[in-house]
Amino acid sequence: MAYNLLKGKRGIISGALDENSIAWKTALKCHEEGAQFVLTNAPVAMRMGKINELAEQCGAQVIPADATSLEDLENLFTKSQEILGGKLDFVLHSIGMSPNVRKGKHYTDLNYDWYLKSIDISALSFHKMLQTADKLDAMNEWGSIVALSYIAAQRTFPDYSDMAQAKAVLESIARSYGYFFAKKNKVRVNTISQSPTKTTAGTGVGGFDVFFDYADKMSPLGNASAEDCANYITVMFSDFTRMVTMQNLMHDGGFSSSGITDELVQELSRGK
Amino acid sequence: MAYNLLKGKRGIISGALDENSIAWKTALKCHEEGAQFVLTNAPVAMRMGKINELAEQCGAQVIPADATSLEDLENLFTKSQEILGGKLDFVLHSIGMSPNVRKGKHYTDLNYDWYLKSIDISALSFHKMLQTADKLDAMNEWGSIVALSYIAAQRTFPDYSDMAQAKAVLESIARSYGYFFAKKNKVRVNTISQSPTKTTAGTGVGGFDVFFDYADKMSPLGNASAEDCANYITVMFSDFTRMVTMQNLMHDGGFSSSGITDELVQELSRGK
Amino acid sequence: MAYNLLKGKRGIISGALDENSIAWKTALKCHEEGAQFVLTNAPVAMRMGKINELAEQCGAQVIPADATSLEDLENLFTKSQEILGGKLDFVLHSIGMSPNVRKGKHYTDLNYDWYLKSIDISALSFHKMLQTADKLDAMNEWGSIVALSYIAAQRTFPDYSDMAQAKAVLESIARSYGYFFAKKNKVRVNTISQSPTKTTAGTGVGGFDVFFDYADKMSPLGNASAEDCANYITVMFSDFTRMVTMQNLMHDGGFSSSGITDELVQELSRGK
Amino acid sequence: MAYNLLKGKRGIISGALDENSIAWKTALKCHEEGAQFVLTNAPVAMRMGKINELAEQCGAQVIPADATSLEDLENLFTKSQEILGGKLDFVLHSIGMSPNVRKGKHYTDLNYDWYLKSIDISALSFHKMLQTADKLDAMNEWGSIVALSYIAAQRTFPDYSDMAQAKAVLESIARSYGYFFAKKNKVRVNTISQSPTKTTAGTGVGGFDVFFDYADKMSPLGNASAEDCANYITVMFSDFTRMVTMQNLMHDGGFSSSGITDELVQELSRGK
Repeated sequence: MAYNLLKGKRGIISGALDENSIAWKTALKCHEEGAQFVLTNAPVAMRMGKINELAEQCGAQVIPADATSLEDLENLFTKSQEILGGKLDFVLHSIGMSPNVRKGKHYTDLNYDWYLKSIDISALSFHKMLQTADKLDAMNEWGSIVALSYIAAQRTFPDYSDMAQAKAVLESIARSYGYFFAKKNKVRVNTISQSPTKTTAGTGVGGFDVFFDYADKMSPLGNASAEDCANYITVMFSDFTRMVTMQNLMHDGGFSSSGITDELVQELSRGK
Repeated sequence: MAYNLLKGKRGIISGALDENSIAWKTALKCHEEGAQFVLTNAPVAMRMGKINELAEQCGAQVIPADATSLEDLENLFTKSQEILGGKLDFVLHSIGMSPNVRKGKHYTDLNYDWYLKSIDISALSFHKMLQTADKLDAMNEWGSIVALSYIAAQRTFPDYSDMAQAKAVLESIARSYGYFFAKKNKVRVNTISQSPTKTTAGTGVGGFDVFFDYADKMSPLGNASAEDCANYITVMFSDFTRMVTMQNLMHDGGFSSSGITDELVQELSRGK
Repeated sequence: MAYNLLKGKRGIISGALDENSIAWKTALKCHEEGAQFVLTNAPVAMRMGKINELAEQCGAQVIPADATSLEDLENLFTKSQEILGGKLDFVLHSIGMSPNVRKGKHYTDLNYDWYLKSIDISALSFHKMLQTADKLDAMNEWGSIVALSYIAAQRTFPDYSDMAQAKAVLESIARSYGYFFAKKNKVRVNTISQSPTKTTAGTGVGGFDVFFDYADKMSPLGNASAEDCANYITVMFSDFTRMVTMQNLMHDGGFSSSGITDELVQELSRGK
Repeated sequence: MAYNLLKGKRGIISGALDENSIAWKTALKCHEEGAQFVLTNAPVAMRMGKINELAEQCGAQVIPADATSLEDLENLFTKSQEILGGKLDFVLHSIGMSPNVRKGKHYTDLNYDWYLKSIDISALSFHKMLQTADKLDAMNEWGSIVALSYIAAQRTFPDYSDMAQAKAVLESIARSYGYFFAKKNKVRVNTISQSPTKTTAGTGVGGFDVFFDYADKMSPLGNASAEDCANYITVMFSDFTRMVTMQNLMHDGGFSSSGITDELVQELSRGK
């Protein structure tokens, strides 16, 4: 069922690698709700993924951009406005990568160049997007910008490694830049802290399955899926949430407020 | 502009005293978005207010209920299902009153019977609603229950007095009962922590004006209005937010994440 | 090893039921560190416990007091100053009881008179202590007041039932009264959120053992013991922590910041 | 008055620029309480400061180290153990610098190389210290490691700029590495979130005076001083706080839990 929630709205959606991506589902949902948008991803990710399929389904154009490159971002925001015929109402940041995780470096044996790369790719890219949009005056009044985060920013998940710090930066940027964008022209900036999700990126983290099951058991509603997240992002882009800003919004089936659950107790009692 | 976001949904909205009430605006918005609902308020509040005007505008019936009375609540939930023709999809709790505040007792000189009354009226009434709905099996799967809170649950506002504790209880109940309702039939329970609002109830708190202005200056988007809150409640009732539960959601123009603002600095520098 | 950390300091310690109590260990530690204090407990608890043994070991007097009775508390604070020869430097609140938990009422079937009793006994008693001490001007400048809490105030542990709300009130009172006591004469008020502890009271909660083990596995340093807690309380009473106020201090071996641990992953993987 | 709280303990204290530094006061206090330690600072900071005066007062040796250099840190931890005659019991990280702030770049016009430098110097240096200590097995069981943070990690202070993100990383590292160090040999890792402090570094931030006064008015006990902070750090190094780990500890006179204060209301009402 569609409601035309985003009718007339224009935006940019990053990070749609394949049909498991949260960004992919978000694009489909935003399209369904009447939005027009540009899709973007890193050139290297685009070669691996199938973003053009998605673009076709959504009637969207694709602009490759390395989100760590100011030049690419300037091109992205300039071209997007040209293509869409006006300033933007929403932006989704869904970008994250840790060379340390990918190459199996333990948190107690990190490579510090890669550590800075994790932060640059996964978090500073968000500031770069915001600063570029700000300088180009690319956002409409009451626009909405969202980045995807994870509760590792608050609590330690040993295998999540330096991505914990990257997400802490990401959420902090939303609070800091949210202040300036609110003052500039009432644009809101938030992060959504999503359940572990079976995306191609998510499943790369070590021991993902045990961990996914644990989160599912610890979430009274179960883990939120990529589709659920797309729904939530959609209302964060809509005019119904104009006064929510500088927040980290838990979208996790209750995980963050759950101390223990009966499911987990049963699981833990089984072996005894 | 209406989207039919709540088409086919049935609910109960409490606390609509007059056209300044958040609940009043919520009723209008839910009506606009296609919901059917019953209005309720305490018999004493109904005599002071003009809830019948609202009922007419919304095509809603009114069922008086003292939210501290299990009998009244049982009647409310039973009759509401009869009137609306089925189980409920949403409930709004917007009830709060402190005899200590009303009668000017200072926080360091509280009357303890009244203290318990503040908690009973403003917070236990929420548990009573939840427990009644639960026992009567009155909620549809994926239903949504919201109560209105305030950041005094986290930070001290001296004049807010024992209502700080009442709101702490309210938010805690959402986390506790949210667990059980999620397990029962996937109903979510949340609180919305709203900006200070110029309602008839809100303005009763001492020094409200200075305080309202301070909050406005400390909120990068300014204070959220009652209308803004009605919008946010509406999406929390919609199917777009199904996996958000056991949360306290800041709806405050950024106040909660704001350490200081340029407006406040200017204000404070003026006298120097 | 003793350091005379509390030399010359006078106080009141409530809640020492038997040698498993945190308050019992705290009394021993405060005695060791040079403090003089009065012990207190509810008359009914005193009959069950052996507080007089402790009193002898500490050279302390015992003043029975029902912490919900203003009369008893007035007597307690007045007599304590007489006995100790001056105003007080510290107070420990270690009081909690839920009739609903004790009588096995489920959280979805609470008795509301008992619910109010849980809050009155476990939390309002703290406000009563504070207000009594305030009115009698019983605290020395830079005094320190501590109450014991639990992380159920932030996250849901299904069996903890209405004690979750009681602890939420307790922590909120520390923030609210902490403001007024700071202004009055620089007295600080905090809560310590302690690991599950094998006290006579703690083990009364349902499924305590599985739950204790889970917390232990989820705490990188393991659960904090009653002795550990006594140590922490001691420094919170000392002059080294004068500017810490209105805080809820996690004393839990890292539980609160732990998302998952290798121990738990191993436990959960075992059955597979 | 001294208590020998740290008798027999060995450690490293970084960041003592001059007698206004928190680290300077901490060194004096730790010395007074019986600890032996090595002082360290960046070579460039040492030229500006007068760390040798302090070293003399404390009977300590100074080892220059650029905290971003693994080589320097390896030398620091190796030599410190030689000098002090054994493994370490405590480490203080008190290091922070933002080229963007120093050179007046606005948060909406950041230089990204400098942004990474802010994070590298102010936060990754903490991970480097931890990883170096870990690899060299330099910490005794039950040791304690503390870094100094600021509430800008949670709330936006516009002039604090990219240091907000640096502090967010710092606090996140304490949670992440705290897990691994707890498992390794029960070492705890925490951050202390200190009031704005009139240090030579602190006063470099724009509009510091208005801001310092605001924080003072919003803190029921007033701002915590550098001496107060030294006291708090001392107990965090002592054996009384062994089970506190992975925490960010507010040391701020109540600022973080304060919504508004009478002082501020009066200030804001004055102009009206």
